[in-house]
Amino acid sequence: MHSPGPLPVNIPPARYYYFNDRIVDAHAPLLQLQDLGLFRGYAVFDFLRTQGGKPLLMERYLQRFRHSAEAMRLTLHLPDATLAELIRELIRKNGFAESGVRLLLSGGYSPDLFTPAEPNLIIRIEPYTPAPQSSYTQGARLVTDEYLREWPAVKHTNYINAIRNQPRVLAAGATEVLYHWQGQLSECSRSNLFIAKGGTLITPPLQQVLAGVTRGQVLRLARAAGIPVEERPLKLEELWQADEAFITATTKRVMPIVQIDHHTIGAGTPGPLSRHLLELWEREVEGKM
Amino acid sequence: MHSPGPLPVNIPPARYYYFNDRIVDAHAPLLQLQDLGLFRGYAVFDFLRTQGGKPLLMERYLQRFRHSAEAMRLTLHLPDATLAELIRELIRKNGFAESGVRLLLSGGYSPDLFTPAEPNLIIRIEPYTPAPQSSYTQGARLVTDEYLREWPAVKHTNYINAIRNQPRVLAAGATEVLYHWQGQLSECSRSNLFIAKGGTLITPPLQQVLAGVTRGQVLRLARAAGIPVEERPLKLEELWQADEAFITATTKRVMPIVQIDHHTIGAGTPGPLSRHLLELWEREVEGKM
Repeated sequence: MHSPGPLPVNIPPARYYYFNDRIVDAHAPLLQLQDLGLFRGYAVFDFLRTQGGKPLLMERYLQRFRHSAEAMRLTLHLPDATLAELIRELIRKNGFAESGVRLLLSGGYSPDLFTPAEPNLIIRIEPYTPAPQSSYTQGARLVTDEYLREWPAVKHTNYINAIRNQPRVLAAGATEVLYHWQGQLSECSRSNLFIAKGGTLITPPLQQVLAGVTRGQVLRLARAAGIPVEERPLKLEELWQADEAFITATTKRVMPIVQIDHHTIGAGTPGPLSRHLLELWEREVEGKM
Repeated sequence: MHSPGPLPVNIPPARYYYFNDRIVDAHAPLLQLQDLGLFRGYAVFDFLRTQGGKPLLMERYLQRFRHSAEAMRLTLHLPDATLAELIRELIRKNGFAESGVRLLLSGGYSPDLFTPAEPNLIIRIEPYTPAPQSSYTQGARLVTDEYLREWPAVKHTNYINAIRNQPRVLAAGATEVLYHWQGQLSECSRSNLFIAKGGTLITPPLQQVLAGVTRGQVLRLARAAGIPVEERPLKLEELWQADEAFITATTKRVMPIVQIDHHTIGAGTPGPLSRHLLELWEREVEGKM
């Protein structure tokens, strides 16, 4: 099997970010050093992308960003409508064909480096390059790691374990690392997991994973198409017996998985349910004909 | 029981930090926004303090800082001797009676915000105020939380759970939050835990906790004084049956604990072993007569 490999690392830089109250030069030195996000990992973020140059499902991402901020007692002063307008302006000014939009809210300049202060807000625009087509036609790979994600309901910035695993991911020609803990599957470091078994779609419940926006849309599309769906705890052994597996993420959409560690999933090629859901996604969400 | 309460939050700011290759104004905007420590929580740190104006046990803290950096594949270019000289110069320039010295090494300006880049190094000087004497004469309180710390051997910056618990800590008039997981005790958010039972000192082993510099010194002092010591897994129930408990940390030294949640520990006053070890600490490590 040819591996589609990782996404390219050397991406061109953005020219403009938003920082607290204004649009700024992306590479200017702007942050004071005593930020709580930097010194204590105390920050939340979110990430959305454009489709045809327009932010896709933006209101859902902004809603989740605000939920994460509130859970960590960080005040997001700007209303969603203002954030949406700023995001549109930044996308225009940076001028990429397609953009990724990363929002970050940190614990701010904390005198004791422990008590959250007035948050720092950053909006970062990145050029968005879709995954190579081979990831969808041939399927992608995962590696696994036994790891319990901290507070998965909140999109905080702790990606230590994901970055720690990245050399293994790259060495295996994989796309992602899949987490399990005491025999239970949860999610990938930056994607949600689904399996298909006997025509039923199964994915771990929201108590155990981040509420992926793509995950939510795929569940909605599946239910509307009459596909049986179960949101329930999923055992690692069930993965090895699955007919199909796929992951969902903002950048990856519905990406079929054909190999995990040394296990081949199903027939080793993208399965019919994965392909059907990708088609539904492209038609219903992305608006492709 | 009168509670000693938390340390003061409103501390005077430092005037000088060190940033990458020079001494800088502490509050200048210096950091570009796309730092991996900020966006992915990918950074390590360490913290030491002065005693009589001189850095205490500095070589051990620098050794641990380098160990944390290496574990996270971050290169600390400056040798320990250069770091030590910089730290002494920063302490002099800031001119506090006693100083805390915080070193941070982040994953740097990462174009894809995932792959570690050239690290950013920060050295921050803080005024150090010892805990109030009542913490030692009357003892301090803890609250507990069921939490499994990620990668405890490395002093990374993930303090989300510690900060999340801080309102509970303050409301209880406590000093720290103590972590346990599936019936096993580990450590506090910023301190190590010891108990005494039948004249023996017991503390969880290094597989489960950070290698506290103060912890290591207290173990050394105890062994030299002929006090029996066990480094072994410690059950939560053992805490409720303990004769004494105390925590060790750079800022807290050997601090007796007399209440944890609604449980009184031992007689509810600092025990003889805790007091003995604090005396040994002051005499042998701090050089007090």
